Parts: sequence; C-alpha cells; structure tokens
Amino acid sequence: MSVETHTLEIETQGTNHTIDLTSKIREVLSRSSILSGVACIILPGSTGVITTIEYEPGVIKDLTEAMEKVAPRNRPYHHDQAWGDGNGFSHVRSALFGASFSFPFVKGKPILGTWQQIVFVECDNRPRKRRLVLQLVG
Amino acid sequence: MSVETHTLEIETQGTNHTIDLTSKIREVLSRSSILSGVACIILPGSTGVITTIEYEPGVIKDLTEAMEKVAPRNRPYHHDQAWGDGNGFSHVRSALFGASFSFPFVKGKPILGTWQQIVFVECDNRPRKRRLVLQLVG
Amino acid sequence: MSVETHTLEIETQGTNHTIDLTSKIREVLSRSSILSGVACIILPGSTGVITTIEYEPGVIKDLTEAMEKVAPRNRPYHHDQAWGDGNGFSHVRSALFGASFSFPFVKGKPILGTWQQIVFVECDNRPRKRRLVLQLVG
Repeated sequence: MSVETHTLEIETQGTNHTIDLTSKIREVLSRSSILSGVACIILPGSTGVITTIEYEPGVIKDLTEAMEKVAPRNRPYHHDQAWGDGNGFSHVRSALFGASFSFPFVKGKPILGTWQQIVFVECDNRPRKRRLVLQLVG
Repeated sequence: MSVETHTLEIETQGTNHTIDLTSKIREVLSRSSILSGVACIILPGSTGVITTIEYEPGVIKDLTEAMEKVAPRNRPYHHDQAWGDGNGFSHVRSALFGASFSFPFVKGKPILGTWQQIVFVECDNRPRKRRLVLQLVG
Repeated sequence: MSVETHTLEIETQGTNHTIDLTSKIREVLSRSSILSGVACIILPGSTGVITTIEYEPGVIKDLTEAMEKVAPRNRPYHHDQAWGDGNGFSHVRSALFGASFSFPFVKGKPILGTWQQIVFVECDNRPRKRRLVLQLVG
C-alpha cells in the first residue's frame, strides 16, 4: 500500500476565474511510483470549487452564470452582515458544489474523457494564492 | 494493498434518463477479491452526473426538474453559440453536480441506505453509450 | 494496506439542522493506526448532505437558504404525491449536493483549511438519528 501527498500551487484572479488543473495532475501522476488507485484533490479552504468540465471559454462562462443564479454575488448574505467579508456567496457556492474531487487513475493516467478537464473555480471575491492538496492511494 | 479497475457499460435514452447502477456495483463488489475499502465511480465524459437517490419514478422526476431549474435546456448557452452542440446545459449540470461519486464498501457490500441507490443521470441531449469506470482500493 | 471503518452517530433536529463533524473526525483520525490516506464519509440514507463550510451561523443560514431556492420545501413534489412522505425536497437536495464527501488526511489529521469544517446538513423534514460511516484507506 502506498500513499503520496502532493501540492499544486495556483494563483487566481478572483471570482469565477477557472483554472485547468489537468496537466499539473497528469505530471504528478506520471512521476508517481503509484501506478493505479484513487486520487483525491481538495482545496483546504472554504471559498472554491473543484469539479470537471470541458475547458472551453463558452461553457466555463455558462458554468459561472449558473453558479451566479444559485448564489448571486449582489444580494445580502447573513455571513456578510456578521463578518463584512463580502464573500458570503463564495462560501455558499463552495459548500453546494464541493471543495474536493475524487477520480481513479490507471497506469499513471487519470481516468477522464477526452473533453473533460479537472478545474478549480475561484469563488472568493479577490485574487488568491491557492495551495491544493492531491492525495494518491493505490 | 490492492487496486481493481472495473467498467460498467450502460445505454441511455438521452436527457434526464436516470439509470440505477446499484445492482451492477453490488455484483462487481461481491466478486472482487478486495473485501473492504473505498470505491470511486466516474463518468469519463463531461455530460453526465453520478449521485445517490431513492430510485423511485416520482423523486427522479423531481430531481431532473430541479436540474432543469438550475440549468434549463431551452435557453441560450455560450457553449452552444461557439460549438453548436446544443448541449451547453448538459455540461453545466455535470460540472455542478458531479461526474464522480465515492463510497465505502465493507465485506463486499457498498455502504448505502435501504432506500438509497447509486445512479447515473444522463445530461446529454441524445442517447449515449456510457462506459463508467469503477475503481476499488482496499 | 489498511482499511478502517468507523461510525459517527449524531441526532438532528430536522430540516436544515447543520452539524459540525470535524472534531469527531479529528478524534477518529488521531486514534487510527492509519497515518495518511484518503477518508470517505457517507450518509447511508437519501435525505442528507455532507460537505464543507465555515461553521458560522450566518453562512450556514445562507447555505440552507440557497438549498431552499433550488429545492423549495413548500411546493408539490412527485415523490410526495406517490408516497405522502412530504420530503420530496429532502431527496432532491441530497441527490444534487451529495451524500458523501472525500478528503485526504496526513499524519493523523484531515487536510482542511483553518475556517473549513466538514458538516452534515439534515435535509429530511423531521428529527433523525443518523449513523454516518467514515472509511479510511491508507
């Protein structure tokens, strides 16, 4: 049994900035001594989402518009009334759509579709340096 | 440590077709040499959702109506303007609600409630043959 | 390779009651013989959600208001017409936002942000005793 812990560092430009993590993940997997297993990537933080999508500008705009509909930026949040951060919507989006994502990998490669990328969606209301943790077991 | 990779093949009838995967998953687990661990099932593709629900026609209709509300089929999507696929809503639903699902298994059985099934929700706008990957580590 | 199965028992007060699971999870991890790996926690049931959020009353109210918007309590559901449970909305919320959550742990500690807690959101329409299953592989 093996476990490996890797970190991925990214810089985001604020709300809705969506970053394709797939090539970084592929690189980690290709150099890992664990060939097959399950990978779990998490944002240690409460204002971002990790998911999969076709990394194409149109559909990424569609995704963030859908998030905007569910948890709009410009309406009052209890969180903001108490803390004044102005990022109540960011917390809600992360809690609804998930701060971690798990996927299988086989022979050093993630099991993904051709048009499917693993992405980080910044939900916070300002640019952030993010340190994601990618755990491999297998 | 053991890892096993299985595939589940299904055919869907297009948008909102929801297929109960539980009996196929139970069969894989009952024949596996790995008794306990974590299972991760993924759609290698960007237009479907894997989740759990009581597999009962009424609530499945309720689920797809809720998805319809969040990402309606009949409104313009940036994705469709660029690619003409007409399935922008499919991508958005998959990204929001998740193309993978993880669950524990013990003594060859998935840890699920009595009225809880693991399902695939087709989000694409046409019938698809789907090949899901079920990874077992344990 | 090691696998451990733990259970967490909680009592909820009904719809939207949100319980911080983090200290219970930390306790399990600190006593486990598995130092590092992936943890998967699931509700064996179809009317609850497990996710992460800053455990702060304001933002928890924001989260449940957002769920209310997507799957309102007071509108007709097909599930209720067939079964009369009155908890169609509960099933829909659980299916959309997820009954399981996975996260890495390292040296006996979960990888989480400072303001990020793992929570159970009761979606059912009555108080429930819940037995969550936490599986560790590593």
